[in-house]
Amino acid sequence: MDPIRIDDPRDPRVAAYLDIRERDLAGRQGRFVAEGKVVLDLLLSSRRFTAESILILENRLGGLEEVLRKAQADLPVYVVAGGVMDAIAGFHMHRGILAIGRKETPHPAGSLLDALPAQALIVVPVGIANHDNMGSIFRNAAAFGADAVLMDGTCCDPLYRKAIRVSVGAALKIPFASFTDTAGFTAELDRRGYDQFALSPRGRIDIRDARRGERLALYLGTEGEGLPESLLARLQTVRITMSKGFDSLNVAAASAIALHHFSR
Amino acid sequence: MDPIRIDDPRDPRVAAYLDIRERDLAGRQGRFVAEGKVVLDLLLSSRRFTAESILILENRLGGLEEVLRKAQADLPVYVVAGGVMDAIAGFHMHRGILAIGRKETPHPAGSLLDALPAQALIVVPVGIANHDNMGSIFRNAAAFGADAVLMDGTCCDPLYRKAIRVSVGAALKIPFASFTDTAGFTAELDRRGYDQFALSPRGRIDIRDARRGERLALYLGTEGEGLPESLLARLQTVRITMSKGFDSLNVAAASAIALHHFSR
Repeated sequence: MDPIRIDDPRDPRVAAYLDIRERDLAGRQGRFVAEGKVVLDLLLSSRRFTAESILILENRLGGLEEVLRKAQADLPVYVVAGGVMDAIAGFHMHRGILAIGRKETPHPAGSLLDALPAQALIVVPVGIANHDNMGSIFRNAAAFGADAVLMDGTCCDPLYRKAIRVSVGAALKIPFASFTDTAGFTAELDRRGYDQFALSPRGRIDIRDARRGERLALYLGTEGEGLPESLLARLQTVRITMSKGFDSLNVAAASAIALHHFSR
Repeated sequence: MDPIRIDDPRDPRVAAYLDIRERDLAGRQGRFVAEGKVVLDLLLSSRRFTAESILILENRLGGLEEVLRKAQADLPVYVVAGGVMDAIAGFHMHRGILAIGRKETPHPAGSLLDALPAQALIVVPVGIANHDNMGSIFRNAAAFGADAVLMDGTCCDPLYRKAIRVSVGAALKIPFASFTDTAGFTAELDRRGYDQFALSPRGRIDIRDARRGERLALYLGTEGEGLPESLLARLQTVRITMSKGFDSLNVAAASAIALHHFSR
């Protein structure tokens, strides 16, 4: 494709990139923003997501030839000078590589579970509202070969710009779905033969002694509140034993330890 | 102590809190900023650091009585309304609890090593310039009972405001020191009988198979570059095995896995 030069920040062809930060908060009607070379590469390689356009700082174009070769021939690639980029995005975009992707139609949790292999590891975030933590959980899930992320309806969107960036693109790689009926979801996993472990500082089993079967669901709660009592009562609870004077671990760090332990 | 009401953001008694973000970047002549209730509690309980003053939003004072009881009787506690707090700090301070602490005289690495017990676990960050990562490494070090952090001279200051906050105060709890002569430092640890493990994606031993002796030093490098080749050649290298398609782990997550593995 031939890059298209844009000089006016208000050019309608780059309207989707205007005021990126504010637009994140307001939602973007089925679209998301991918940032940086690694994430762009994953977006262009994805079979689940489609890129609608790319916006690149002129001095970054040279390093992107190999990545851009993966783009469809008719995908618009807009090239801008630094000042124009900042004026479009509404703040200083030092990375200089942006793309708009289109979200897929949300999967029902059940159909995502149908598609998983006989041996499966799924991550189940509950109430994770912080985009950093969500992104890190996806990154760790990808690093340790989790097959899917199934989250409850109170979690934040993993396709929020910052979550994708922190995930280093894992949010575009690992299939995910949401569920609203938590009791129904745990019952469904029982029927499908999943071990269901809830990570909790007050868990009954030390994770060093926890052994998984063929199918495992790992539930992660928020740092402050943790998982709801009703879930803890229902599931097997697993703890990461910590130092007595300082038993505080970020949920992303806890997910790294647990996923590493249960990965095969 | 009796709280002192401040109504003028330019009152000289709160000058140390002015434009907090910019001042972080410029350094603060032997002082640091502690933020939030948990960190303030650790500062007031510390034998290594002294608080110089406290600045609190008026509506937070009620919840702090127990923490403030740990303060010396002559420690000034300034109380302000929300607008005054924001005008002093230079941005919206929703936490509403700040304190200025005084740094201790830096320890030479050797005297810190002298003070460690016969069985010791130390963390050795090399080139960690990101305050989030530094804070997370301290938090994980505290959670898994590390005795000290010894960092090379290219690391960032763990007493930077954001690093302390991300560490949830662990930066005030775990003793730390810097070294400049890396070769001399590794030789020193050899003499003191430390196992020296370098965490690296290309490490020779899978961490699951790594066994520590009485004294262990765990080296952590940056995410992009990793540890310098000279160090990797010199030390035992340990890897965290990851998924083939996505072998990318944040250094904080890697430190959590390794410290959990080696903690006792």
